[in-house]
Amino acid sequence: MTRIVTVPLGDRSYPIYIGAGVLRSGRLAEHIAGSQVAIVTNTVVAPLWLKTLNTVLADSNAKVDVFELPDGEAEKNLSNYEAILDFLIAHKHNRSTTVIALGGGVVGDMAGFAAATYQRGVRFVQIPTTLLAQVDSSVGGKTAVNHPQGKNLIGAFYQPEAVFADTELLATLPAREWRAGIAEVIKYGIIQDCNFFNWLIEHNQALLEMSSDAIIHAVGRSCEIKAEVVAQDEREGGIRAILNYGHTFAHAIEALTGYNTYLHGEAVAIGMVMAADLSWRQGLLTLNDSARIKQAIGTFGLPVVPPALESEAMLNAMGMDKKVLDGRLRLILARSIGDAFVTDAVDQQLLQATLSAGKRLCDD
Amino acid sequence: MTRIVTVPLGDRSYPIYIGAGVLRSGRLAEHIAGSQVAIVTNTVVAPLWLKTLNTVLADSNAKVDVFELPDGEAEKNLSNYEAILDFLIAHKHNRSTTVIALGGGVVGDMAGFAAATYQRGVRFVQIPTTLLAQVDSSVGGKTAVNHPQGKNLIGAFYQPEAVFADTELLATLPAREWRAGIAEVIKYGIIQDCNFFNWLIEHNQALLEMSSDAIIHAVGRSCEIKAEVVAQDEREGGIRAILNYGHTFAHAIEALTGYNTYLHGEAVAIGMVMAADLSWRQGLLTLNDSARIKQAIGTFGLPVVPPALESEAMLNAMGMDKKVLDGRLRLILARSIGDAFVTDAVDQQLLQATLSAGKRLCDD
Repeated sequence: MTRIVTVPLGDRSYPIYIGAGVLRSGRLAEHIAGSQVAIVTNTVVAPLWLKTLNTVLADSNAKVDVFELPDGEAEKNLSNYEAILDFLIAHKHNRSTTVIALGGGVVGDMAGFAAATYQRGVRFVQIPTTLLAQVDSSVGGKTAVNHPQGKNLIGAFYQPEAVFADTELLATLPAREWRAGIAEVIKYGIIQDCNFFNWLIEHNQALLEMSSDAIIHAVGRSCEIKAEVVAQDEREGGIRAILNYGHTFAHAIEALTGYNTYLHGEAVAIGMVMAADLSWRQGLLTLNDSARIKQAIGTFGLPVVPPALESEAMLNAMGMDKKVLDGRLRLILARSIGDAFVTDAVDQQLLQATLSAGKRLCDD
Repeated sequence: MTRIVTVPLGDRSYPIYIGAGVLRSGRLAEHIAGSQVAIVTNTVVAPLWLKTLNTVLADSNAKVDVFELPDGEAEKNLSNYEAILDFLIAHKHNRSTTVIALGGGVVGDMAGFAAATYQRGVRFVQIPTTLLAQVDSSVGGKTAVNHPQGKNLIGAFYQPEAVFADTELLATLPAREWRAGIAEVIKYGIIQDCNFFNWLIEHNQALLEMSSDAIIHAVGRSCEIKAEVVAQDEREGGIRAILNYGHTFAHAIEALTGYNTYLHGEAVAIGMVMAADLSWRQGLLTLNDSARIKQAIGTFGLPVVPPALESEAMLNAMGMDKKVLDGRLRLILARSIGDAFVTDAVDQQLLQATLSAGKRLCDD
């Protein structure tokens, strides 16, 4: 069964193919125009899936070049971005080449930024190999690299031609990364769809056991919600920011722990609990719903307790987040489960309370 | 007299203000939204015009930071691009900042690429200080940096909020740069408007003497033609390529002479003569019109004779040009003065003849 979600963006609209085996379905060839393909992948994914992709591409008669990045978020930097550009130039890729990202969010973000800026933009296809990338980073056109001063500070909005979310590719995913991806799936429930949030709780076991049907629904519904939000606000002038629910806290936690303690999804899990806590403190969310969010996240084996970090360091790290507008901190808070919104009416004292409550709030 | 040309691109439309003193007209403040401004300029322009710009900005109450690049095309590289990003981050510029480019094409292209990719895109205003930048690089949204292997290989399409083509700023332009800018003005006549081409010949003296009225008409009509073409084809899928008339030859000449022999406009002048020669050889342009093009360019004191370069080196250098599509060389040729078009039906033998004719063709 292939589920197709369209991201409706006028002349930049594109399909997300979701299902077991979509990569081998023959549709990939439809999205390659020229006679050149550059696959960007990494040293962990290549041994697992590069052969499959090469077999699929063999039919297209395109010349295929492969660039392998080292693995890890630390590699998402300007230096590797330049290495991809050098590679494209060295192999004489022209404006009608197709860049294919085969990997997780780091590979997709970097390959996408390279595709966005190589000769002012070439064709780009995403083949996300992690749950996190399938439900989040591969959809919506955000590409970026990190700067030593902050995550994703350099990048572009650049939509792919197509996304192939082949759920078979998730079979090789380590359990920890699988759970980290579920954090973003839960996020879609919290921000937009209470029924989906409840469905996730009900299908906790099926999801943890990676049942194919459950995965396809979880990925499909997540992509639908993301596509709806992105269609309303492609360049994040407003509503799109709700997709960052929990992320301002998460980015600060990741920065202050050197990007090597938590997977992104794990930091988001903690950040979503903190955002729920602040939403409750600001009188928006009931204590019960805040607790349900924390509990749901916990039942997927995700962390819900923030690490011991100084409030001041957190505030400072949150201040360099891209979501800061004109010096005022904007956050995504929830009025109820399924209804998140962007606000710059953040009560500094209550925020302080959320930050310093830390352990206490999460042990209660 | 302020002439306003609108570049009609839907929600990315923007005005070009053309005239003597438009920078001081008070309109700049309308295009600054946030409380931060980053001026990117260079060490040659800053002593001449930075004080004027700072005075204009003083009314806006925005915090203004200034980044000065060294002067020259050699500085248009990834390393200086990164330096601009580091500068924006160090001064805590947020997503609602406005980047202002004050300078020629190098400053505009780099500041624009930085604005396009800082936090995935911030507000951008162009204040071009050279004729070349006023009639060409500041209009149409092309931003880029060079790669050691070729010009503008890395960049983005990113439209500014507004362009201020203040003809007073051209007063300090060295005569050689002034003439180099006229090459691009002549280009608009050749590709789209025979009447304008004739007007330029008639106003040769007024333009060389920098008469204000003549300048304003030359800049205004050039921007109108460019805006019309860009509006039809923002991302250069087809017709926009005619703006590159003469440029494939020019880029090759610039690359093979180390970017330090010719100003860009001078290389374009030679390239336009070569493109006219090839158009004649391919039976498109009359010999008389080809000669008129060469003569018109020459009367503005621009070079019309290609340097002594091996044909093979030229062909190779032309092969890495962005205009190559799937390995086939596309060129812009002219059917008549005022009617250029894109073609990949380039006769290799006739091209060879144009390349090797070199001196002979230009002395005849």
